[in-house]
Formats: sequence, C-alpha cells, structure tokens
Amino acid sequence: MTSTPRTFVDEKHADQRWHERSWAYQLRPFRGMLHDVRRRLPWYLSDWTTAFHKANLYRVLAASLRMFFLNLAPAVSYLLDMNRRTGGTYGINEVLLASALPLVVFSIFSVQPLTIVGVTGLINLFNYTNYDIVTRYEGVDYLQFQAWMLIWAAIFHILGAIFNFCDFTRFITDMTSTTFGLYVGVIYIQKGIELLVFEFSSSAVDGWLAVLVAVLFTVIVYLVERAGQASPVPFWLRKFIWDYGFICGIIFFAGFVHIPGHLKDANLSKLPITKAFFPSTERSWVVPFWELSGKWVAVAIPFGFLLTLLFYFDHNVSSLMAQARHFPVERPAGFHWDFFLLGITTLVSGILGLPAPNGLVPQAPVHTESLSVMKLVQVDGEEREIHTTTSGTGPTQMKVVRTRVVEQRVSHLVMGLLTLGTMTRPLLVVLGLMPRALFAGIFILVGWASIEGNPIIHNSLFLLRERRTVSLDHPLLSVPKKQIAKFLSAQWFVFGASVAISQTVAAIGFPLIFIALIPVRYALLPRWFTERELALLDAPTANAPDVLQSIGGELLEINTDRKLRSGDATPKAPADVEVVAMEDGSMAPVVHSEDVVAGVGSAR
Amino acid sequence: MTSTPRTFVDEKHADQRWHERSWAYQLRPFRGMLHDVRRRLPWYLSDWTTAFHKANLYRVLAASLRMFFLNLAPAVSYLLDMNRRTGGTYGINEVLLASALPLVVFSIFSVQPLTIVGVTGLINLFNYTNYDIVTRYEGVDYLQFQAWMLIWAAIFHILGAIFNFCDFTRFITDMTSTTFGLYVGVIYIQKGIELLVFEFSSSAVDGWLAVLVAVLFTVIVYLVERAGQASPVPFWLRKFIWDYGFICGIIFFAGFVHIPGHLKDANLSKLPITKAFFPSTERSWVVPFWELSGKWVAVAIPFGFLLTLLFYFDHNVSSLMAQARHFPVERPAGFHWDFFLLGITTLVSGILGLPAPNGLVPQAPVHTESLSVMKLVQVDGEEREIHTTTSGTGPTQMKVVRTRVVEQRVSHLVMGLLTLGTMTRPLLVVLGLMPRALFAGIFILVGWASIEGNPIIHNSLFLLRERRTVSLDHPLLSVPKKQIAKFLSAQWFVFGASVAISQTVAAIGFPLIFIALIPVRYALLPRWFTERELALLDAPTANAPDVLQSIGGELLEINTDRKLRSGDATPKAPADVEVVAMEDGSMAPVVHSEDVVAGVGSAR
Repeated sequence: MTSTPRTFVDEKHADQRWHERSWAYQLRPFRGMLHDVRRRLPWYLSDWTTAFHKANLYRVLAASLRMFFLNLAPAVSYLLDMNRRTGGTYGINEVLLASALPLVVFSIFSVQPLTIVGVTGLINLFNYTNYDIVTRYEGVDYLQFQAWMLIWAAIFHILGAIFNFCDFTRFITDMTSTTFGLYVGVIYIQKGIELLVFEFSSSAVDGWLAVLVAVLFTVIVYLVERAGQASPVPFWLRKFIWDYGFICGIIFFAGFVHIPGHLKDANLSKLPITKAFFPSTERSWVVPFWELSGKWVAVAIPFGFLLTLLFYFDHNVSSLMAQARHFPVERPAGFHWDFFLLGITTLVSGILGLPAPNGLVPQAPVHTESLSVMKLVQVDGEEREIHTTTSGTGPTQMKVVRTRVVEQRVSHLVMGLLTLGTMTRPLLVVLGLMPRALFAGIFILVGWASIEGNPIIHNSLFLLRERRTVSLDHPLLSVPKKQIAKFLSAQWFVFGASVAISQTVAAIGFPLIFIALIPVRYALLPRWFTERELALLDAPTANAPDVLQSIGGELLEINTDRKLRSGDATPKAPADVEVVAMEDGSMAPVVHSEDVVAGVGSAR
Repeated sequence: MTSTPRTFVDEKHADQRWHERSWAYQLRPFRGMLHDVRRRLPWYLSDWTTAFHKANLYRVLAASLRMFFLNLAPAVSYLLDMNRRTGGTYGINEVLLASALPLVVFSIFSVQPLTIVGVTGLINLFNYTNYDIVTRYEGVDYLQFQAWMLIWAAIFHILGAIFNFCDFTRFITDMTSTTFGLYVGVIYIQKGIELLVFEFSSSAVDGWLAVLVAVLFTVIVYLVERAGQASPVPFWLRKFIWDYGFICGIIFFAGFVHIPGHLKDANLSKLPITKAFFPSTERSWVVPFWELSGKWVAVAIPFGFLLTLLFYFDHNVSSLMAQARHFPVERPAGFHWDFFLLGITTLVSGILGLPAPNGLVPQAPVHTESLSVMKLVQVDGEEREIHTTTSGTGPTQMKVVRTRVVEQRVSHLVMGLLTLGTMTRPLLVVLGLMPRALFAGIFILVGWASIEGNPIIHNSLFLLRERRTVSLDHPLLSVPKKQIAKFLSAQWFVFGASVAISQTVAAIGFPLIFIALIPVRYALLPRWFTERELALLDAPTANAPDVLQSIGGELLEINTDRKLRSGDATPKAPADVEVVAMEDGSMAPVVHSEDVVAGVGSAR
C-alpha cells in the first residue's frame, strides 16, 4: 500500500538479549515511551491515509460499525449492573462518556490504535465493591473517594510507564491469561443471569419474557454465527455474518419486544436514560475531589494500587491479544506509551466521576479480526503455516486465510465519534427503547464464547477424549496425561478462587491473584513440569515480533535458565502451541489459542 | 448368532424380472402375503430368542426405552391438538390404546417387526378435518362416521394386500419421499407453535413461560445431541447421548416446571387426563357404528379411500426407511402381510373409536438405528462403502460403523407393554404432571430434525454453495445447476401446495398429491431430465435387497424404459445417491438420504 518507513532501532542495545541488560537500562526513565513513539512516528501519517485507500475503506467502515456495537453493548450491560449496585451514581451518560473519551484519545494519541479501550466488567466489580465498602462509613463521599483512587492509580500508571514496567508483560504466559479469560467469561454469564433474576422483581410475566428474549437472542445469534462458519455457506455470506451477525441480532431483538400484542403489552423494562450530556445524578461534571478528608485520600492509595495492578494486567493482555502472532500485524507496538496514555484517561475519569476505562480483553482482538482481509484458499500444505483461521470442514479442505490487517486509526476514531453521537438526545432515546433483557443476552453470548473457546476447556476435554480419536501429531500426546491434569488442576483452582473472591467484599483483591500467578509460574512450575511440557502447555502470551520490539527484544524462552545462559534460544514453543489450538479447532474451528482469551469467538 | 435359516424363494418366478411378469401373476390373490409369511417363518423363533442373547439384551432394552418415549411423546403431542379440535372426542386414553394396540399386534404378528406403528400427525389432520366437515351437518355422529371411514379403509387395505398392491411401492422415489419428509417436518413445527399460541389463552405469564420451556427443551436437547456427535466426546458418552439424550431432556423438563418459586407459581397447563382405561367421553368402548344412516355410510367410502392412500404411502415409506440399505438388516421384509395387518388394526380402531395408527415416518428408522450395534473404527478406505454413519470430523478420520442390527421382536413388544402400563392410574397421573409446553418443544425438535436433514434443503444449499468449496467427486457436480434448480423447484412447489392444502378443509385430499407424484415422476420427468440426472437426483426409495424380495425382485432401474426392455439393468443409481447424502453430511454428518425422510436426525 504505502512504502514501509524505516523503523527506529535502539542500535546500542539491539544485539543485547533481555537477560544481558543492566538494571540501569531497564529502569532508565522514559526509555520505553520514547522508543515506542520513535518507532511509530514514521507510520503516523499513513495510519490515517491508509484507511481511505479504496481497497481498505469498506473494511474500515464495517469494522467501525461492528466494534461500535461490540464495544458499547457490553459496556451498557455492565452499566445496568453498576447503576443498580452503586445507588445510581453511574448512569448511561457516564458510561457513554467513559467509552467515547478513550476511543477519541487512543485513536489519535496512542502508539498502537488496534487496542480498544472501554468500560469493562472488572471496573464494574471494582466500583460496586468500593461502594459497598465506602457506604459503611459516615462522612465520606463515594465519588470523591473514587476520584482519589483513580488519581492515585493514574500516578502509578504514569510512574510505571516512565520506568518501563510494561517490559514485564513478556513474562505473562497462557496459564495466567487463559485462566483470566475463563474467569471473565464466567463473570459475564453470572451478570447476565443476575440481570434476568432482577427482571422478576416487577412481575412474573416480565421475568419470563425477559428470560425468553435473552435465550432467543443468545441462541439465534450463536447458531447463525456457527452456521455461518460452515463450508456450504457461500463465502460472501460468511463475511457478511462475521461483520453484521451480532449487529443484526441486537437490532432485531431491540425491535422484537415492541411488536404489538403480547410482546408490547408485557412492557419489558428498558434501559434507563436521563438528560443528554448531563451527569446522571444532580452534580456538575467535575467531582469536588478536593473536599475529601486527608484520611480517606490516604485510604484511597491501596485501592488505586490494586486498580493499577488490574489495569496493568488487563490492558496489556488486551494489547497482546490485539497483536497476537496469528494476525499479520506489521506496524510497531507501544506498550509503554499506551500505558502512560491509560494513566491520563484514568485521571480524567476520576475527575469527571466516570467508570475508568481500560483495555477490553474480549473486544481488542476482535478489532484486529474485523480489520483483517480474509481470503478463501485451497489447503495445499504450503500456505498452511501462516495466519490461517478456519480450516473448512468441507471435503476439499478450503481454508480462510487472513492476508493482511488494515492497520489505521480511522476505525477507532469513527467508533469514538459514533459513541459521542449516541450521547445526543435522539440516539439516547433509541437506546432507551432497548430492553434490559437483551443486554442480559449479550452478557451470556459474549461470556459463553469466551468459555467455549478457552484452552482450559479444550485441554480438559482432551483428557476425556479417547486416544484413538486423537490425531497422531497432536502435540499434547507427548505430555503424560497426569502432567496435563496437574497443570489443569492448578488453572481450575485459581479460576475457582478468583470467582469465589469476586462474590465477597474482598473482590477488589482479585487482581493480586492473577499478578501473583506470574512469579509462581517461574518459581514453582519448573519444579513440577519438564521444560518440554511447559513449552507445550504454557507458552508466553507475547509472541509476535512487533510486540516484542516494544517490551524488550527477543522472544522469551520460558523456563530455560540454562538455555538463556547458553544463548540457544530458538523460538519453537509458540508455533507448537498454535497447532494445539488449531487441533482443538475441530470443535470450535475459528478459535486460536490467542483468540481464546479474547473470548468473543461467537461474536466474530 | 443363530444359523441362518434357508429362506423361501419363489422359484418359478425368481429369474423373471419385474417387467417380464404377467398381470395375472401380479394380481394373483394372496401371492405376496403368502410369500412374505413363508420367507419370514423360519426366522420367527429366533426373532424372540435372539433378544435374550447376552450380547443383545442391553441394546434391546435401551432401544425399547428410547422408542417408548419417541413413540409416545409425539403421539401425546398430537393428542393435545386433536383433543382441542375434535371437541374432546379423542383423549389421552384413546391415544394410549391406539399406540399400545398396534405395538402388541405388530410385534407378535407382523413379518417385519422393525417398523413401528402408532398415532401420527397426519391422522390428526384427517380426524380434525373430518370433524370440521361432519359437524356442519345435523343428525350425524362424528365417531360413527369415523368408524365407517375406518371400516371402509380396512376393507381397501385388505383388498390391497390380497392383490399385491404393495409391489408398487418400488416406484416410490426420493422426489416423493423427501418432499413428504419436508412436509411432515413443517407440519410438526406448525403444530408446536399452535400449541404455544394456545397457551396464551389463559394468561400471558403462562404463555411466555410455555414458550420459554419449549425453546429451552428444543435448544438444549438439540445442542447436547449435536455436541454428542463431536469427536472429542468419548465414544461411550456418545452412545449414552444417542440412547438417552432425548429421554433425559423430557424427564428434566417435566420436573423443571415443578420447581418451587416462579416456576411452580406460574402453574403451566398440564396434560389433561381422565379415568384410567375408560374412554375420555361418556361412552362405551364400542362405537355403535350400526346406528349411522346409510347415506353417511356411503359418504364415508371416499374418505376411507383417501385414508387408504395416506396409509399406503405413509406406512410403506416408513417400512422402507426402517430397512434402508445403509442398515445392515438381514431378515426378510413383508410389505403385503404387514399392510393386511394394518387393515386389521384400522378396523379395530374404527370400532373402538380410536385414532387409527399407521407406520411412523420419523420413528420407524430410529428403531432400527437404536438397535444398531455401533463401533468406532479408523477410516482406511476398505470399510468405507458399507453401513457408515458419522465420519468423525476429527483429525484422524475415525468413523462410526454399524456392525449389525439386533433384529428381534422383544423391543417392539416391550414398548407395547410399557404403553399399556402407562394406561394405569399411577402412570397416567405422572403423565398428567407433564406441561403441554414440553410437547410443543417435542414437536419443534422432531420437526426441525426432519427439515435440517432433508435432501431438498441440502441440495438447495448446494446450489448456493461456491463451486470451489465443493469436493471434486461430488456427484451433483455432473448435473447442470439449471437442472438441479428445475428439479428442486418442482419439489418446493409440491411441498408448498401440500402445506397450503393442509390449512384448508380440503386437507384430507393431500394424500392424493403425493400418490399423484409417483406416476408424474415416470411420465413427465424423463422429458425434462436425462437418465443420468434422474439417477443422481432421484433414486428409488426401495433399495435394499431384503426389501425388494417382498415387493417384486430386482432393484428397479428407474426411467429406463429402453434399458428395461433391453435387459441391461445394473443397479448403480442408489450407490451414487448415497454418496450425495454422505457428502452433504459435512453439514449434518449422521444423516443419510434415507434417514432424511425419517426426520428424527436429532432425536437419534
């Protein structure tokens, strides 16, 4: 398309391996941020112009529309929960602004505009748990406390970015990220069911109808998207379903409940809306955070720290997903700069009293997916290794290949502008016509997709599977069943613990669990598993060259202290693991190990 | 298992081809019935003893239980419709007796005990249409009229059996039987929806809950059975789901609506039951048919004739399905004798005022399927040609093979005894706890399975499919798209016409449409299609050697008047067509062209 700009290389340290670098280099202030910007700057102009190339424009617009829905629908779903559980502090206007703000900021100022930032389920959990805690005490204003928590978090973010802490994301492995993916999926479904249970509080009719709408939405969209992957479906129709299946489902069911007769009579509860552009409660946009007592300002510090841990993990994993190796992404990543930018949006959210946005684990990779140009080609061995998605189940083994990703900033900005547009009165009224039950369905659909495609599930099924039905080149066949079971038990245990803790007031501590898993992975697991086993069961999540450029150079050979020292570091693990995921693809064909954490297999 | 008895062969005519035989031979009274019995008699004792062999007993019991549910559930579903539309004339006791009677009679006295006979949706259509017609006039008793219709029908049946009319079933081709299968599937779903609409008449809560129960039942059983075909599922679990998935679904949802709370409060309408063993209305079991005026006795003649056409088609197609070539059935068929027996049960039904039972298109082949011994083997080319079901979608291409069918009479009789048992008070009360909504779900599930697996659907999808995704050895590739489209349009037109006519008072005329298709097939189609095209698009439904033995000898080479005369008649067509169905199997892997009409793909 455009000629490739010469990329900045940190010449002095380019030949140094990660473990050879000094701590002074590692902690040198602004080193990461500066390098990130330097690397990306030469691409900046074409980041805008590429979008308008006639080969790209349709893709950009289709992706904008799809991501607008996929970003906003779960955010609004969480709002319904957050609104109820924080005494109405957060309303639709706050969520819309908290969605629009980072979209505009990140599309223009980020290094890597593929990563979508928005309101997640975990910030919802954080917010209402804080509400439960804070409202136990007299004389403290919840929003002011939230503001301070976010101010502290912003400071930690900025410090983390300055001192290159994002380099450590290279240590995140699939053990952590897939457990996190499963956790997010289950929490989504739980929220969906809670929303539906709440619908019974007005009347049983509304309750049953709400359940019905949610079930029908989930099942129909799921089955249509499943059917849309089958080989008898013409390729143009498959592409259409990928792009618009989810959107059509939402529009249809939003209208469905307004059909006159029994449906309209039931008068399902709709999304509560308030005056456009104003905060949902009687307040000005700026939270008077300066009124909070010093004691509570101090109390907010650990909360801000926990939030920073959450965002560090959640945002960087999202970003890794959006640039995973199976996407043919070519433009450089920028973890440090983007984390700094996240600090800024966190600060602004605190001051304006918004739920703080961060990287969206499910949506970020779907953005890249939506921007991928797909092609249907015959399987003939040669192309097999790069960027395949579906292996057609048909007799001729056609497969869908991602030829390239339309990398640009326009789709991101358009999403932001659409979201801003939704804040105006006319579109707000349209939102107000949507039944809550539909949002419950969205929860269940997105959550289920995350569970269905998760490697923990696939590997657990692998254990149940009869050996004779397994392909002889299945990588896991070389790992003893007992070892797989041991590894999975650890994952299931952590998963169970994090779900359990989320139900208590200790919920805000859950990021600690996931962060703690990272050192555990390097300290304990090598005692229980061989190198080869870990390479097959637990590859590093950061595995694409463009990503590694930003976070410290070469691909990390995990669990190979000896090897790292001896300098023998051929990156073989990730390729293997990708095959694992392809294999399991027989059940959910499009899903890759990396997608899996993404968790919107069905929404794509 | 047992030594194969020497089978009776009609020596004098064994070498004669169908078209070489004289009309005198064709119409020779009792010829077919006598030969049927002679052929089967040597097997009769082992038909009973085989079941108790320890290698067979579990299969026999599992099949009995599954078929008991699969036979009774749709019958009861239709009863709900029939009861409402005939002013309560037919109730649960009539349907139970009408189900138990033929089960006991056919298990003991039939030649081919694989064919299940029971209450179908089409007799429901017949009965309520008659009710609409008869109740327009004064001074005629509906049940007496029905009795006479069935008496006449019985006479036509017996005459048909005596004069060997079942020989003509060899002319039935897939064009007719698959159109009929699609028609039955759509009528099932329509009835399911009608039942649900009716639930709204008490209150909206009940209505929505009923819809929810029906949707959940359908979707869950469907998805579990789909998932149960996936290769990661261990084979023993797959077999369990085949045998008990449907039963577990029914039992779970029958209990589900009784869970205290919102579910129990809604008080969904249940199955209406009456006093055990007595007719549902105030009458004695014997209908005083002798009281009907002569005029109406005469009017009943054409009705009886139409019913005979329906049963001739429906029963014989069921029987063909139950013994299709892809089942390794070895014991001889007996179309003539069994049709005579059907005349007897029709007569008894008329006199007792029961809905007349006949061969069940969806259930008959499932009985054979349930009795099949399945084995998981590796695909290695050799075994490929015979009796395969699923081609595992897994990487190693494992496939499920039917090694043999446990042919016996015990499962059939046990079903009959279980049905009789259900007529007793305690089990009747259990039936009375089942929500109507569940039966609506059964309608939709069974109907959808029939539609999903239908070759009309598959061939229509084939037209939409891109050439490059089609295997090069797909048989339909040799037929011009235009010709396939023409053939399908004819099928869709007939389908549309029969669905349309079913909605009117002319509904009882619909058997004429299907019967008329048979001569049309031989008179008109050869003008529009080449021989090769017809062989690929429209094979004869009767294609198994044991079946052909009963209905006239060698496999019919369709549309080959010249060939028939020249004596060149290699039976190549059916093998080809089976490949067609296998091919489309990429979408619905278990379904065969023959199963397809069966229409319970998902219930297996």
